[in-house]
Amino acid sequence: VTSSGDFLLTVLSGGTGTSKLLQGLSQILKPEELSVIVNTGEDVEISGLNVSPDLDTVMYALAGIVNEKTWYGIKDDSFFCHEALKSLGHVELLRIGDRDRATKLYRTLMLKRGKKLTTISKELCEKFGVRANVMPMSDERVQTRISTENGVMTFHEFWVARKASDRVLGISFDGVDNAKPAPGVLEAIEVADSILIGPSNPITSMGPILAVEEIREALSRDSGRVVAVSPIVGDAPISGPATVLMQGLGHEVSPLGVARIYRGVAGTLVMNSTDEKFGPSIDELGIKTVFTNTLMPDRAARIRLARELLDI
Amino acid sequence: VTSSGDFLLTVLSGGTGTSKLLQGLSQILKPEELSVIVNTGEDVEISGLNVSPDLDTVMYALAGIVNEKTWYGIKDDSFFCHEALKSLGHVELLRIGDRDRATKLYRTLMLKRGKKLTTISKELCEKFGVRANVMPMSDERVQTRISTENGVMTFHEFWVARKASDRVLGISFDGVDNAKPAPGVLEAIEVADSILIGPSNPITSMGPILAVEEIREALSRDSGRVVAVSPIVGDAPISGPATVLMQGLGHEVSPLGVARIYRGVAGTLVMNSTDEKFGPSIDELGIKTVFTNTLMPDRAARIRLARELLDI
Repeated sequence: VTSSGDFLLTVLSGGTGTSKLLQGLSQILKPEELSVIVNTGEDVEISGLNVSPDLDTVMYALAGIVNEKTWYGIKDDSFFCHEALKSLGHVELLRIGDRDRATKLYRTLMLKRGKKLTTISKELCEKFGVRANVMPMSDERVQTRISTENGVMTFHEFWVARKASDRVLGISFDGVDNAKPAPGVLEAIEVADSILIGPSNPITSMGPILAVEEIREALSRDSGRVVAVSPIVGDAPISGPATVLMQGLGHEVSPLGVARIYRGVAGTLVMNSTDEKFGPSIDELGIKTVFTNTLMPDRAARIRLARELLDI
Repeated sequence: VTSSGDFLLTVLSGGTGTSKLLQGLSQILKPEELSVIVNTGEDVEISGLNVSPDLDTVMYALAGIVNEKTWYGIKDDSFFCHEALKSLGHVELLRIGDRDRATKLYRTLMLKRGKKLTTISKELCEKFGVRANVMPMSDERVQTRISTENGVMTFHEFWVARKASDRVLGISFDGVDNAKPAPGVLEAIEVADSILIGPSNPITSMGPILAVEEIREALSRDSGRVVAVSPIVGDAPISGPATVLMQGLGHEVSPLGVARIYRGVAGTLVMNSTDEKFGPSIDELGIKTVFTNTLMPDRAARIRLARELLDI
């Protein structure tokens, strides 16, 4: 239930890129105006913990406590347990901080008790003072698996452990065929005045969300409301391993490549001002183009971009 | 394989009391002269972790890093994860430090991989630089359960959560009937020149060890080699909940009560000098008596008592 003057925005989010934008959006929108549907394809078990990296990054970003050096974990966290484990010979794939470990442990214990990921995320957001509606894309397990010349690996094996050094041959989202949207996800898409596909990796961050059939259908039904922000500027991503992933899957690494991936889902693509040359080709796809400064090195830039996006 | 001049001592240990003595013994004996058989009846699952409190306290004590304020966990450890969990509404029954959590997590992960507790304890001791032979009493799960007027509870529920406030009606060591001594335990008893039952709680610390049938038999076979140190001075334990436990089970809370519990297992009982009045009654049980200062407030006292015990 929202008052009539509200502008309802629903954001599709991965970790880093979109979380920066969410920082900006949350400074402008009221919490009840903002819903976030978060990728869970990178969820992974580490040291017996159910780690949902993107859910945590979004939550920490909205709570104002995200570690902005890594866009992973909590600002100024300590790593005593992680380091002690390492000295015992057990090296964790992700560097999990002591406070961040509590979040992941809480999730793990609650999942064991039979609670749904959606419920747990709501509880955690409440505890961290996050009032926006943050939801996993699905309560069912979806696992991104990247086929490479050196075998099939999870996203973290591919990116964190092997630094995206393997040639990509294909990608799958295991479990996605049976994944229903989490409770609230379709509603958040339906009631939104606008839906934003954030500037995250189109393959591994947005790919799993858009691979959930009912989510993709709901977006496609009224793609005029859907605005995507290109995470690619020129011929390179602002951060992360999008280049090798897009190349490996036969996509052009450019805003045009991004536009082709989002065709049928997004009605508008927002790109960096330096990329006007891609305008005509993207127009031809039936996607409107908007050019602005999409770089967000600091909070001021994040608020500025958020404001411009809300004006669109 | 040990050289001929070695004095082989095998110690039965719980947490606090015996660990203090082990600090002293380890200053005098060579590591290869010292074996420790540790109670696992208080092992408990907390936050999905396999916690073996006595094994950890013994190991940390021998490594010189035990928290001597609580005789639990690691000295100067931090509690960021524990506190963050608490603020999320999950209160852990034991206050687990960040570095200590790594020990417990390592054990948990290795048990999940199918390793035996004995193997994992050896690995941990090696990592912590402990060269004495520290063994769990058994690789099989034994759980101490205390029947009280307010229901059946684990040792930690009884002692940590409820501060030993319930009248004790009985005690059981669930699983002990099927528990075999861990690999190395019977050998350590067999080859020992002397066996020491440390000054720990005779009911919940020594009780489970002595309830493993083959261990009890091995000790009884040659009880002349077995020396027990009374954890009771006068009519009270030096620390811990021995009073209500002994009372509840119908034992006199005195060195004489302790002597009766260890009858048939220990040939000698070492008591505090203030307890000479119990001498004649204990003699009548066929147990030799030795009186000395059994209090160990500091390291010097621990070394002194250790030296006196080795002289016996």
